[in-house]
Amino acid sequence: MKCEVICIGTEILLGTTINTNLSYVGLQLDEIGHTVEREVCIPDTPDAIGESLHAALTRADVVITIGGLGPTIDDMTREIIAEKLGMQLEFRQDIADHIRSYFGQRNIEMPESVLKQAYLPDGAEVIPNDFGTAPGLWCDRVHDSPVAGGNRRFVVMLPGPPREFNPMFSNYVMPRIRELFPPAVRRVHLGVSGIGESSIETLVDQTLTRFAELDVAYCVRRDKVDVRLTAPLSNDQQLEIAADQVRDALAPYLVDPEHGIVGSVCQAVRDQGWTLGIAESCTGGEIARRITDIAGVSDVFKGSFVTYANAVKIELLGVSSETINTHGAVSAETAHEMVRGLSERLQVDTGIAVTGIAGPSGGTADKPVGRAFIGTIVDGDSRVQRYDHPGDRKRMRDRTTLSALNQLLRHIQAKTK
Amino acid sequence: MKCEVICIGTEILLGTTINTNLSYVGLQLDEIGHTVEREVCIPDTPDAIGESLHAALTRADVVITIGGLGPTIDDMTREIIAEKLGMQLEFRQDIADHIRSYFGQRNIEMPESVLKQAYLPDGAEVIPNDFGTAPGLWCDRVHDSPVAGGNRRFVVMLPGPPREFNPMFSNYVMPRIRELFPPAVRRVHLGVSGIGESSIETLVDQTLTRFAELDVAYCVRRDKVDVRLTAPLSNDQQLEIAADQVRDALAPYLVDPEHGIVGSVCQAVRDQGWTLGIAESCTGGEIARRITDIAGVSDVFKGSFVTYANAVKIELLGVSSETINTHGAVSAETAHEMVRGLSERLQVDTGIAVTGIAGPSGGTADKPVGRAFIGTIVDGDSRVQRYDHPGDRKRMRDRTTLSALNQLLRHIQAKTK
Repeated sequence: MKCEVICIGTEILLGTTINTNLSYVGLQLDEIGHTVEREVCIPDTPDAIGESLHAALTRADVVITIGGLGPTIDDMTREIIAEKLGMQLEFRQDIADHIRSYFGQRNIEMPESVLKQAYLPDGAEVIPNDFGTAPGLWCDRVHDSPVAGGNRRFVVMLPGPPREFNPMFSNYVMPRIRELFPPAVRRVHLGVSGIGESSIETLVDQTLTRFAELDVAYCVRRDKVDVRLTAPLSNDQQLEIAADQVRDALAPYLVDPEHGIVGSVCQAVRDQGWTLGIAESCTGGEIARRITDIAGVSDVFKGSFVTYANAVKIELLGVSSETINTHGAVSAETAHEMVRGLSERLQVDTGIAVTGIAGPSGGTADKPVGRAFIGTIVDGDSRVQRYDHPGDRKRMRDRTTLSALNQLLRHIQAKTK
Repeated sequence: MKCEVICIGTEILLGTTINTNLSYVGLQLDEIGHTVEREVCIPDTPDAIGESLHAALTRADVVITIGGLGPTIDDMTREIIAEKLGMQLEFRQDIADHIRSYFGQRNIEMPESVLKQAYLPDGAEVIPNDFGTAPGLWCDRVHDSPVAGGNRRFVVMLPGPPREFNPMFSNYVMPRIRELFPPAVRRVHLGVSGIGESSIETLVDQTLTRFAELDVAYCVRRDKVDVRLTAPLSNDQQLEIAADQVRDALAPYLVDPEHGIVGSVCQAVRDQGWTLGIAESCTGGEIARRITDIAGVSDVFKGSFVTYANAVKIELLGVSSETINTHGAVSAETAHEMVRGLSERLQVDTGIAVTGIAGPSGGTADKPVGRAFIGTIVDGDSRVQRYDHPGDRKRMRDRTTLSALNQLLRHIQAKTK
């Protein structure tokens, strides 16, 4: 199956909006072994829309247009594409009613111009929009039109805002694509954290009984390495055996498929009926934020401190001023006292304390920017490790957060195995 | 000036990488009154690269290609474009030396394949890459080549990773574009927070003495509304007068141009020689993280609490258990005791306390998901306000964070004017 994406809207070209829809489409198609072959981003002009549609239809089976379905004067995707495909626009009372009730429910007065969205190409099927007023459109009689040259083609029009686009694509478009172009392959994804890409490859190679049609790929993501096994559907059973082998080899490093390393940490704490607390300095709240991104984590996470000022480390965590004076706020000794103080003050079974230099200033020859000491405590046993994550402030904080979560996960594993 | 961007790399089409480079280019060109007219994203294949270059050169003055300059077998941008433009690849000793020293400094063994990056099209000018090994290339003799049809054209090749791409584009490409295609307009941007788009428009309309060539635009961003004034360079003085009028009209709502509302809050605290502390429940560390994203904020920010569990609110902030039992953890009374407790425990002059229901569970008919009570304290005076930010968890946390920062800024302004 060949798929092309046409993004319509000057806001992406102006740079005020980052195009996340393409990635959303790409990842889901890839999951069933299809790929976006080309994407183009064009302004809202009749010529650009018409030409791009024409060019895409000479190559692709499925053309997805994103954007330009709104009520304003510069939204013209529906009109231009209907014209190019030789379809008439018809007023649809049911869509008009949906739009009216959308405004009614929100107690907002409806501008009459919005009803423009109820004029739809005849024969196009409506893709319901549960989060906005612009309906999506699925056109499957494209082969009758002059631009398709008699080939079986599909044109799908969806609105641009991700809040509307994402559920419409996942819930309505993907099932149809799956039915029309059945997946030829199956993939298994495993998320791995706390070990480098080349070490993962070595472990996998040592364990895996390969078969001819098995493809293994590695992709370094922001907070994990994605290991992807792919095989033809006909080889489903062998794929399962291979996946089990890889799972065994990487067991200590596998992370929660939905929430990543932070999900794994919370689950490991939960499994023991334990609780968790955090004390952060250079990461400034990032670790707590990641943990509380997960809904329903309050059964394990009790709370955290951001102890930026030394006085606050002393006052809230009971770090001794002598330790800070002798060894510095960024030291193994301070991290150690922070994590012990944290577990006492919050009465938690597990905890992380971080102290470091995020930069760009504050570094010295002895303690450069990027240096961090991370303390973890598990059931009364505390450990401190040193890390160096040079680079900009954001990167340092990101990497240090990952190191901290990994250190606690390994620590819990060591204490509970 | 017409500019087109060609993004080369399957990782964007596969969805594993989100294309942020296009937005980076778009925003900077827009600043000097130019626009990206079209962007296309294609896989690393000779045909796709050749065809896209050819098509872009029939329309655009400047074609920027991004990606495909690396050392691996699927990096072929340099080779294909040199061929299309009729340029020969030549080995450049200085580039080879730079690559060797890049690996040497990092103590990594250099694979010989990397030296492929030292073969550059003759006559192309090198754009230095301070954060990687792939040099960028600026080709200004494109009009000699058959594809350009004798028109004055420029082709710029840059590597894809944003860490390399961004500084190369800003530091080397933008100055040249500015020189070749001088900006015809000047823009003034003002960031506004704590007031809706239509109220901003009303305030601006009441104040502004418009002149014929002045353009005013509003753009709603994640954490502010961007008000943009544009005028021809020849009208520079009048633009300044207009900008001053708008600044006066929006004075209480203007935010720090670099760091937004969070920067304005820290500056307002700093201006008084005060200190700042935070206590978060539903926002889970997000407010502290935003504050500590700013380097050098330790002169005002002392620390914060994430008090997720009720016991922690009682223990650390001194909220009375009776208050929680009578009014609930999510209540004006609890927020009030949290913010007073916070300022006592951390000994800070200003503070924010947030308690709310981020969802998706935990809501009731009385207290729905999205409800938050925010307490602020300024120099001993405390206030609590109620907010409702329904929607998903992330959106609720984002909006509540903004409301909290806005409430504190207004509170400080009221106490210090």
